Amino acid sequence: MGSIYGKIFRISTWGESHGKGVGVVIDGCPAGLSLNEDDIQAFLDLRRPGQSKYSTPRSEGDKAEILSGVFEGRTTGTPISIEVRNTSQRSGDYSEIASYYRPGHADYTFDEKYGFRDYRGGGRSSGRETIGRVAAGAVASKLLESVGITVCAYTRAIGGIEAAETDRNEIMNNRLYMPDRAAAQRAEEYLDALMKEGNSAGGIVECVAEGLPAGLGETVFDKLDAELAKAVMSIGAVKGVEIGEGMNAARLTGSENNDQFIIRDGSIAKASNHSGGVLGGMSDGSQLVLRAAFKPTPSISAMQRTVNKNGEEIDISVKGRHDPIIVPRAVVVVRSMTALVLADMLLMNMSARLDGIQRFYGINEK
Amino acid sequence: MGSIYGKIFRISTWGESHGKGVGVVIDGCPAGLSLNEDDIQAFLDLRRPGQSKYSTPRSEGDKAEILSGVFEGRTTGTPISIEVRNTSQRSGDYSEIASYYRPGHADYTFDEKYGFRDYRGGGRSSGRETIGRVAAGAVASKLLESVGITVCAYTRAIGGIEAAETDRNEIMNNRLYMPDRAAAQRAEEYLDALMKEGNSAGGIVECVAEGLPAGLGETVFDKLDAELAKAVMSIGAVKGVEIGEGMNAARLTGSENNDQFIIRDGSIAKASNHSGGVLGGMSDGSQLVLRAAFKPTPSISAMQRTVNKNGEEIDISVKGRHDPIIVPRAVVVVRSMTALVLADMLLMNMSARLDGIQRFYGINEK
Amino acid sequence: MGSIYGKIFRISTWGESHGKGVGVVIDGCPAGLSLNEDDIQAFLDLRRPGQSKYSTPRSEGDKAEILSGVFEGRTTGTPISIEVRNTSQRSGDYSEIASYYRPGHADYTFDEKYGFRDYRGGGRSSGRETIGRVAAGAVASKLLESVGITVCAYTRAIGGIEAAETDRNEIMNNRLYMPDRAAAQRAEEYLDALMKEGNSAGGIVECVAEGLPAGLGETVFDKLDAELAKAVMSIGAVKGVEIGEGMNAARLTGSENNDQFIIRDGSIAKASNHSGGVLGGMSDGSQLVLRAAFKPTPSISAMQRTVNKNGEEIDISVKGRHDPIIVPRAVVVVRSMTALVLADMLLMNMSARLDGIQRFYGINEK
Amino acid sequence: MGSIYGKIFRISTWGESHGKGVGVVIDGCPAGLSLNEDDIQAFLDLRRPGQSKYSTPRSEGDKAEILSGVFEGRTTGTPISIEVRNTSQRSGDYSEIASYYRPGHADYTFDEKYGFRDYRGGGRSSGRETIGRVAAGAVASKLLESVGITVCAYTRAIGGIEAAETDRNEIMNNRLYMPDRAAAQRAEEYLDALMKEGNSAGGIVECVAEGLPAGLGETVFDKLDAELAKAVMSIGAVKGVEIGEGMNAARLTGSENNDQFIIRDGSIAKASNHSGGVLGGMSDGSQLVLRAAFKPTPSISAMQRTVNKNGEEIDISVKGRHDPIIVPRAVVVVRSMTALVLADMLLMNMSARLDGIQRFYGINEK
Repeated sequence: MGSIYGKIFRISTWGESHGKGVGVVIDGCPAGLSLNEDDIQAFLDLRRPGQSKYSTPRSEGDKAEILSGVFEGRTTGTPISIEVRNTSQRSGDYSEIASYYRPGHADYTFDEKYGFRDYRGGGRSSGRETIGRVAAGAVASKLLESVGITVCAYTRAIGGIEAAETDRNEIMNNRLYMPDRAAAQRAEEYLDALMKEGNSAGGIVECVAEGLPAGLGETVFDKLDAELAKAVMSIGAVKGVEIGEGMNAARLTGSENNDQFIIRDGSIAKASNHSGGVLGGMSDGSQLVLRAAFKPTPSISAMQRTVNKNGEEIDISVKGRHDPIIVPRAVVVVRSMTALVLADMLLMNMSARLDGIQRFYGINEK
Repeated sequence: MGSIYGKIFRISTWGESHGKGVGVVIDGCPAGLSLNEDDIQAFLDLRRPGQSKYSTPRSEGDKAEILSGVFEGRTTGTPISIEVRNTSQRSGDYSEIASYYRPGHADYTFDEKYGFRDYRGGGRSSGRETIGRVAAGAVASKLLESVGITVCAYTRAIGGIEAAETDRNEIMNNRLYMPDRAAAQRAEEYLDALMKEGNSAGGIVECVAEGLPAGLGETVFDKLDAELAKAVMSIGAVKGVEIGEGMNAARLTGSENNDQFIIRDGSIAKASNHSGGVLGGMSDGSQLVLRAAFKPTPSISAMQRTVNKNGEEIDISVKGRHDPIIVPRAVVVVRSMTALVLADMLLMNMSARLDGIQRFYGINEK
Repeated sequence: MGSIYGKIFRISTWGESHGKGVGVVIDGCPAGLSLNEDDIQAFLDLRRPGQSKYSTPRSEGDKAEILSGVFEGRTTGTPISIEVRNTSQRSGDYSEIASYYRPGHADYTFDEKYGFRDYRGGGRSSGRETIGRVAAGAVASKLLESVGITVCAYTRAIGGIEAAETDRNEIMNNRLYMPDRAAAQRAEEYLDALMKEGNSAGGIVECVAEGLPAGLGETVFDKLDAELAKAVMSIGAVKGVEIGEGMNAARLTGSENNDQFIIRDGSIAKASNHSGGVLGGMSDGSQLVLRAAFKPTPSISAMQRTVNKNGEEIDISVKGRHDPIIVPRAVVVVRSMTALVLADMLLMNMSARLDGIQRFYGINEK
Repeated sequence: MGSIYGKIFRISTWGESHGKGVGVVIDGCPAGLSLNEDDIQAFLDLRRPGQSKYSTPRSEGDKAEILSGVFEGRTTGTPISIEVRNTSQRSGDYSEIASYYRPGHADYTFDEKYGFRDYRGGGRSSGRETIGRVAAGAVASKLLESVGITVCAYTRAIGGIEAAETDRNEIMNNRLYMPDRAAAQRAEEYLDALMKEGNSAGGIVECVAEGLPAGLGETVFDKLDAELAKAVMSIGAVKGVEIGEGMNAARLTGSENNDQFIIRDGSIAKASNHSGGVLGGMSDGSQLVLRAAFKPTPSISAMQRTVNKNGEEIDISVKGRHDPIIVPRAVVVVRSMTALVLADMLLMNMSARLDGIQRFYGINEK
């Protein structure tokens, strides 16, 4: 269980790192959306391995194929099945890890829960699992754009090195997808040093959405920020999620943290955005801002102590193709999960008010 | 939508601050659990207002009544309806706020989403909404205890004042539920100063669960940490959620953050717990540790700018009965949401393995 | 589990026959719908006991109280909690049945599943359980009416006596809610004879909905007819569900059963309605027609063989207050379940097409 | 929406008749179940076209490929993706039907709901959609068999010709899967006559499950019979669903219809099985019996009146490859849907009782 997400725009992902492929079925995408394989490929290319020295050299083509739900270039309202066949599995690389539990990995918990595991390349808990998310995120993003909502993500920090500026033009200009050129350079130096010692780094991805109408999100449990927290925390290595001021909100006073309402250009707006665009669990019409903290890649070649299946303590060095930092490749995953939540909330929100329903069905309001 | 939580142990909460009452229906609680109204009252009393000068003086009795699902002192497997009638509504206090949007509150977003709102005391977005959560949390906690799982929560920080110690015996000895007496004293001084200026504070609640078998949590989207993030972020004023190292994990290296597996007393254990008890989205057998950051109470008597329904900017001072800090009363809410997630995961996990299913149904394994 | 129904318009019912009360929480009712307790009472009165000699003389007032979700006479978009307190429990009547399993009842299966049961008056499997369904059905019906959809139900047959006519004006004129006066009279004679011998009868309820736009219902599993089948089969004594020609469709040929499309008043219509208003799982714009077969009331005073908890075969006569026929009181239950399905489908359908979504959110179609 | 079924054992199907393929993703299948492609192929072969003169001559190989979730011959607990590529699409056959609405088909409702449709071979509403159901049903059946539950289905009636006997050995001996050789012969003669006039027939599939423990099924809405009704009614051409006595229960009296409990071989049993194995929505330990009525195939070559997209009435003869009767090929679909419901209920039932949960987690009962 656990591989289906969403209430109306629902996705069902599948696939293991070294099985035949990975993919996703999207159920609930509205009919009439223009969609082709290039739309999906553009997203997948952002998470593809082998793009820089900071990502695993495994060179998967990661070619997306749409198998259903699209006819004459438009979605039909029926399930969209998207598949990426695995082409570069080298199972030999991984045979040793069948016998022990890698620190920081899901090897142990998989064995405890399921009794055994597909140990090749992490199986279902491999980063390749995110291909399904990202393919679906590409579709969700197209849906959002068709109603004027855009989602953008970038690397806010690598280790302790934080982007001080947020220059969107810079994001695609450096290998770490940071919106601050100087910070990106310092981060590269930091990573180079870690790689030499066989170590790895974590970091923070920030995601911003614009164009949201006020009111997206459901009250109490299915709040916009609650669903975002789940969606983002569900990404492999995420250990913390923040909305707006995030953890820092705990240190502010009410007069510092409250965003005052003002009139701007004749409309209600907020003088500041400590809330990160969410009030009472609903979008408040300003920019949505969230951050996700990624732990350092657990696969390191430096020596570590662990336990094998015979219950013996051993020392290991994790070999194979691994990223010293997964944050840059995770940027599009955070963006995709945010888009998936927003698409679902956008559709759910349509049934909030009787007057909207009556208008939709052509009934005159009273 | 949005007031139902859970997949197997499902709760459906209802009620407004100044309506006739608040409550919850629990569907999916196993039969045979010993339960009475005192079990629930004990939890509710921890979030009841009027307990100290740091909580609203509104004095609700908050008496829980069980209306169904319990027979001869035990749950029957059918829905458990629990209700708390409101007794202390003073609607007069709130009539003014119908006309404008309080900064930091859900007034504006409710109006945008639903067209109008029950403005009395915050309506559905009032803190009283959490009574349903806490009543259900009490039931979930009893279920967990019956299989040896305990959940504990306390105040880790008030504003910038952090509990340095974690002395569980101290938690119930101070009005802020902090596990560090000295920190609690400094925090009280900080709050006293804020109250004088009509201001408010935020803080951090920490929650720890023990006795979890390894393997709770579902892969990919319904991970244990993902569900916890949603459940906790769905609490009114929460802006950030952390598991284990949380946001700090971004600053560590792999060799610092990985928890090495060791043999302790003949069983597999971890030498450290940076993971906070979750690996690959499943419980790893060690202590589960999460933190939630609460923003400062938005209702402050200090003057603020806002906008009224006529589209005019005005200056307001929020009057009425408000907590200068909601964190102490929120401690049991975080504990309850954690218990609800764990109860649901505990039941879901039973269908993970064929051998467990065969054993359950009395089939000999092959 | 099992007491929550719906995807968007979701209801959560609770309550036992001889507990403190019964009720329902509706989550997902749109805001702005005019609603008061009389709307609900009108529905409840149709299923109330004690109305004729054919229903149990137990005289419950069955007064509905709305506890939340309605403000100033309109729904607010938050959960609507509706409660009916039990007032006429006579537990003494039922104490004997704790010790044995009544044929045709759920006593045995409840014990097998849950280990014990609230044996008083059938507990959760009592007909009183339907109060929650009917209260929610009243709300769903108001929502449907606000977009021009009406749902009507009546008794099609009692035992082998079928209503040959469908005169809607007659329905409320006889105690059996049959749309055919002569059939109703014959049915009353049939029932009188059965009552004398301590026996009981079954029958068929038919339900018709009008004003549905074409296209309600989701493809594959959540088809309109599939959801209706589930909703109606979930009513206590139902053993068969039919749409349109129903079981008889198996005996027709394609040329007999196909409904030809024609132009009527300038619009597409069907020359016949063998389909019962559903094609491919979606409403086809014509009248929706379904039928539910109810088994005879299992509680009969005639002597029956059964088994007690000591594993001994015994002969029993079920005493207490029982209906010789439940069909007339079940008419409003079928109508309510149909309304609940249609309300849910109506809201779900809003997200089917991009052009509708863009229009809803004020985006110009391209 | 609508292509996902189940609560724990969840399936997500996809695919159009003339797209690239059809398939299913199963989320929630327990780990450790022995599974290979032959298991699935055996089920698919039962619904494959081209097996007799009564099914469409379209000759699809319908080769199932398992893409994920199985490792070293056993399920891993992660999603099982099964795919069948389409190989025999002849789109030319169907181009004409793009312009009009075939009577009895979903052409019109698809256009109304989604604005347009993949008109090639019925698109998503083609019988090929059931491949995903049957592939998943094969997996569910293996799970059920591993705990001693078997599901069997056959043709009870073709048109008005009913199987009087239920000889299971005969089922696979005739092309109509009837458990009565003489009836099968009469049915073949009936079909031959219809084929000559370009007409089609309906029929009834009966399904029987054995080995069920008592107590499967959830109370109120998610009853075993309610879920079965939904699952079976969701199959393309089904218009009626019956459990046990079904529609006939309406004509019986209580003393005729009640199944008396008896002691057989020292255990509680029933003297008869009018209930069809379901009491109070739960399995009662006896044989589960359900029937589904299929309407005649709507595609007939005999002349019919309909309407085209220009709003003109026209006369058409549906050409192409069509079955004069779909019932024999639908037998395995009914069996599969029944297996899917039972598998889900089997897993759900594990959390019904505290003592079972405690035993599962190794806690001593008190």
